[in-house]
Amino acid sequence: MALLSIDEATARIQALAVPLEPETSALSHAAGRVLAADVACDRDQPPFDRAMMDGFAVSSADGVGPLRVVGIVPAGGAYDAVVAGGEAVRIMTGAPVPAGTDAVQMFENTTWDDDHVTLTAPVRPGENVARRGSELREGAVAVPSGARLTSARLGLLWSVGAATVQVVRAPRLAILSTGDELVELADRPGPSQIRDSNRGVSGDLCRRAGAEVVLERRVADDPSATRSAIADALDQVDVLVLTGGVSAGDFDVVGQCLRAEGVEVVFHKVDIRPGKPLWFGHRGAQLVFGLPGNPVSSAVVARVFLVPALRRLAGAQRPHDPRVLLPLRAPFRGTGDRPTYQPAIAELGVGVTLLRTGGSGDLPGFASANALAILPARHPDFDAGSDIEVMIDAEALLG
Amino acid sequence: MALLSIDEATARIQALAVPLEPETSALSHAAGRVLAADVACDRDQPPFDRAMMDGFAVSSADGVGPLRVVGIVPAGGAYDAVVAGGEAVRIMTGAPVPAGTDAVQMFENTTWDDDHVTLTAPVRPGENVARRGSELREGAVAVPSGARLTSARLGLLWSVGAATVQVVRAPRLAILSTGDELVELADRPGPSQIRDSNRGVSGDLCRRAGAEVVLERRVADDPSATRSAIADALDQVDVLVLTGGVSAGDFDVVGQCLRAEGVEVVFHKVDIRPGKPLWFGHRGAQLVFGLPGNPVSSAVVARVFLVPALRRLAGAQRPHDPRVLLPLRAPFRGTGDRPTYQPAIAELGVGVTLLRTGGSGDLPGFASANALAILPARHPDFDAGSDIEVMIDAEALLG
Repeated sequence: MALLSIDEATARIQALAVPLEPETSALSHAAGRVLAADVACDRDQPPFDRAMMDGFAVSSADGVGPLRVVGIVPAGGAYDAVVAGGEAVRIMTGAPVPAGTDAVQMFENTTWDDDHVTLTAPVRPGENVARRGSELREGAVAVPSGARLTSARLGLLWSVGAATVQVVRAPRLAILSTGDELVELADRPGPSQIRDSNRGVSGDLCRRAGAEVVLERRVADDPSATRSAIADALDQVDVLVLTGGVSAGDFDVVGQCLRAEGVEVVFHKVDIRPGKPLWFGHRGAQLVFGLPGNPVSSAVVARVFLVPALRRLAGAQRPHDPRVLLPLRAPFRGTGDRPTYQPAIAELGVGVTLLRTGGSGDLPGFASANALAILPARHPDFDAGSDIEVMIDAEALLG
Repeated sequence: MALLSIDEATARIQALAVPLEPETSALSHAAGRVLAADVACDRDQPPFDRAMMDGFAVSSADGVGPLRVVGIVPAGGAYDAVVAGGEAVRIMTGAPVPAGTDAVQMFENTTWDDDHVTLTAPVRPGENVARRGSELREGAVAVPSGARLTSARLGLLWSVGAATVQVVRAPRLAILSTGDELVELADRPGPSQIRDSNRGVSGDLCRRAGAEVVLERRVADDPSATRSAIADALDQVDVLVLTGGVSAGDFDVVGQCLRAEGVEVVFHKVDIRPGKPLWFGHRGAQLVFGLPGNPVSSAVVARVFLVPALRRLAGAQRPHDPRVLLPLRAPFRGTGDRPTYQPAIAELGVGVTLLRTGGSGDLPGFASANALAILPARHPDFDAGSDIEVMIDAEALLG
């Protein structure tokens, strides 16, 4: 039977990864979240004709003057009278432009004393003035539902006074590690044991994808312990991640426990290297991912399948990492019978170097990569200079 | 006098932005931080000859068998005897490969029962075995000083048992907003007032750059209040960010207060649009940024100058956002007399669209951008298809 393709596996996961329900959040805690309802502008933006420069508010019809300085208006202040022909008002950035004026000339283009100002260059009507409502009208949508709250959008929500907002709830997630060979971070492993590095990798990937990791623990290779850990996790979370226990020989116990808890399999195994043993299932809206035990396999399928699912649950409209074509800087061996995600060092605008790592166990080799190159199956050797599709881990580019 | 160039301003800031001292952190709180000391491998990785697949451990010299199955070794277990010629041991991924065998054949390439196994394909010596120490030797550097703790490096630190690590301390930062036109998020602005959106934008940018924002407040436009707020902030932080109060007319008060508190100016004004009024100074190792009051100006210079400084203080070796060349999707007007950072929508591998925003006050227009296009000064109109340098905000690409 042909293995499931990467695209088909992605489609089946994304079909079940539906954005979670809205919740109310203080704006101060909403960074990076996805807005669940349009936020409207509470008044025109700017709310008044706003000076964009420090200088003199004038009527453009008056030409270069000299004009009589009749007052000063600081930011936050106002000039209450109407400015007459031949008059000017000293004004600061952010202040309301007085009635009777239609432009601001910056200090640098004037000569002035306390009584009079002469412009060294004339002004156009509206110059250095942001007209009331020119950015947004009262009642217009300031930030639309579905928008991710970047810094600038947070600022915009500040400007319309959205102290609380409706955002898509962050997925709650549990990570259960299986395997008697695993010990905790602080423990000394026995001769046949290793520390549970997969939990460190997948926990961080999930948090960065917007999930709240509410439960992280190791489970003994024992049916009753496994089943009760799964049941306990499914009581609490939207997404259950199991690491280990999905390869050919030892999936029986985990699979039986999942079935007994009402989890239906969607697929087991994908046509990808590394990471073929990936298992995916669901119980209603709850998603269950079984990641392979080999650390690089686990990290790759978490990046390719799990992270986009979490971003989608959190409401992202573009949940996938960006991809670019980059020229290969040195030749690389051809691929085998599966599409391959090869650890790589990408330099945007320059090229990509594929790393010759020790395979699906070689976490040290993998950790020096900042990207994954996507190589098609059964491809002959890649020549230097060929364009390679690269999946970018934006954070890792900062080095 | 010629304005300071962007490159020169960057160089002066980076010369003063020296990585902070190391501190001890639990690994569980070190995500995204920069390692301040090499972490060595506490034992060979893998610590034993490790099976990479579920299957049978065999001697490659035995060919395809049939071989007698003399035992089973689960992950975390061990096979204590030496396997003789003609024998095989059933083995699980992650288990130690028994003495006397040198390869693992996966189940799929065997026919077997409890007593005997026949390989349907021969194995090469070492096939599906990760040799002890093949990834890292005991005592070798697992993660070097200066490395940013990505997911994979966190996993690697887990695998070597680094429960606590030395990381570069995160910069502590204060944001003081000046301007009587500003009101708090939850307050109703008067007719000449606006809410303090700059604090929302710059606070989020600083947090995402790795800073700990320990103080955020608005300061009245009054010399004694301003000076005491500055003094109080400088008692607590590595970086002081002032927003507003740096344009031509109203810098006097802030500048006097800074001087009185021992802050030396490094530069005031940069040849950039928007954001020319940027002020930068220092008091010893403490850095002080005065951001302009116009919201787009403030956001742009925070991205271009402040964020890289914070990343550098936090130890980053590549503190600047990545830049790429992208073809322009539609023609755009030429630039004036200053290099211009134009809000843009970038699609990696496709192109860039420059946004015709309402200028340095137009936060709504700016918020729909996911990148800044870098346009040289005094350039005639840009044709569709021309390559434009674009500064990528990795987070914003996810949409």
